[in-house]
Amino acid sequence: MTGSSGKRLYVALIHHPVIDKNGETIASAVTNLDLHDIARVCRTYGVEGYYVITPLKDQMLLVKRILDHWLNGVGRTYNPNRQQALELVRVKATAAEMISEIAEVEGRRPKTVATTARRHAGSLSYRRLRDMLVDPAPIVLAFGTAWGLSDTFMADADFILDPLTGAGTYNHLSVRSAVSIILDRVLGKKFKR
Amino acid sequence: MTGSSGKRLYVALIHHPVIDKNGETIASAVTNLDLHDIARVCRTYGVEGYYVITPLKDQMLLVKRILDHWLNGVGRTYNPNRQQALELVRVKATAAEMISEIAEVEGRRPKTVATTARRHAGSLSYRRLRDMLVDPAPIVLAFGTAWGLSDTFMADADFILDPLTGAGTYNHLSVRSAVSIILDRVLGKKFKR
Repeated sequence: MTGSSGKRLYVALIHHPVIDKNGETIASAVTNLDLHDIARVCRTYGVEGYYVITPLKDQMLLVKRILDHWLNGVGRTYNPNRQQALELVRVKATAAEMISEIAEVEGRRPKTVATTARRHAGSLSYRRLRDMLVDPAPIVLAFGTAWGLSDTFMADADFILDPLTGAGTYNHLSVRSAVSIILDRVLGKKFKR
Repeated sequence: MTGSSGKRLYVALIHHPVIDKNGETIASAVTNLDLHDIARVCRTYGVEGYYVITPLKDQMLLVKRILDHWLNGVGRTYNPNRQQALELVRVKATAAEMISEIAEVEGRRPKTVATTARRHAGSLSYRRLRDMLVDPAPIVLAFGTAWGLSDTFMADADFILDPLTGAGTYNHLSVRSAVSIILDRVLGKKFKR
């Protein structure tokens, strides 16, 4: 599948390994609107595929049932736009399975860019990520649910993206907002600020 | 209340008058995550106030109960960050009541900027809106729920903002995504694209 932009960006929404409010590693529950909102913004910006990562069997089943409603059930005729967005969704138990699948489809292993609300030394700027996307090498942009990606996931990533900053010190965005803003920054048409 | 950025931007989420998928004017139902996601992005970008407009008494009550949980109830101690965001929310029956309240607080009537996914002649660019925000005059950025703001609402607005465009022709974003991206474009710190 070739995106209209020629860019090879994938989005991953990680439900494990993420941390809870106490910093413990958990598997979070899937949120219905994460599927819809993020699929819609992925479709709008020409993302190649949207991976939902959860090792929990019941959560995988839930995602598949929601997708089935919109891709094959009454949702398909009720709102065809939603179908176009949700057909980007793939469900995998682990990030490793996602990486293998993308490597198989693309013919090369994707680089992983982890996102976080915290500042890390040597993090990747939006400008540099935009530049990297000119290259046809596939990239996975990974977002954590709950209180964010675990330290082990961050350590395994190839890059860590600069955190989003707003007007002050408050930056507790929903993952839906973070994906939306970051895709606009790296895939949106340039406009004069 | 003076924002850290010195800008006087308000966000309005309109539940009436908006249109349904057949173009009929309706009053839509309030969505819980619209309150949370949009309040969080408003707080992150230094928005002055987030108005939820609904003429429906039961919907106004619903919003007030959700706010009470997070501002005064157990939500307040469970997640103080959420309280900081949701204290930006004000509920009004009509946009006119909102305009009156802002005019009273600010000492001058705000200009209204309507948002839409459709292209309109003479629409306002993001760059121009950014420039307008240097001025201390208050501005309300209005977003429609359901299938968008009604023609009468659009006709009454002082300005119509350029629609968001992504990689292709698909631009069916959730209102949560649209608010997030637009606030980043007009209030986000400048960065090199």
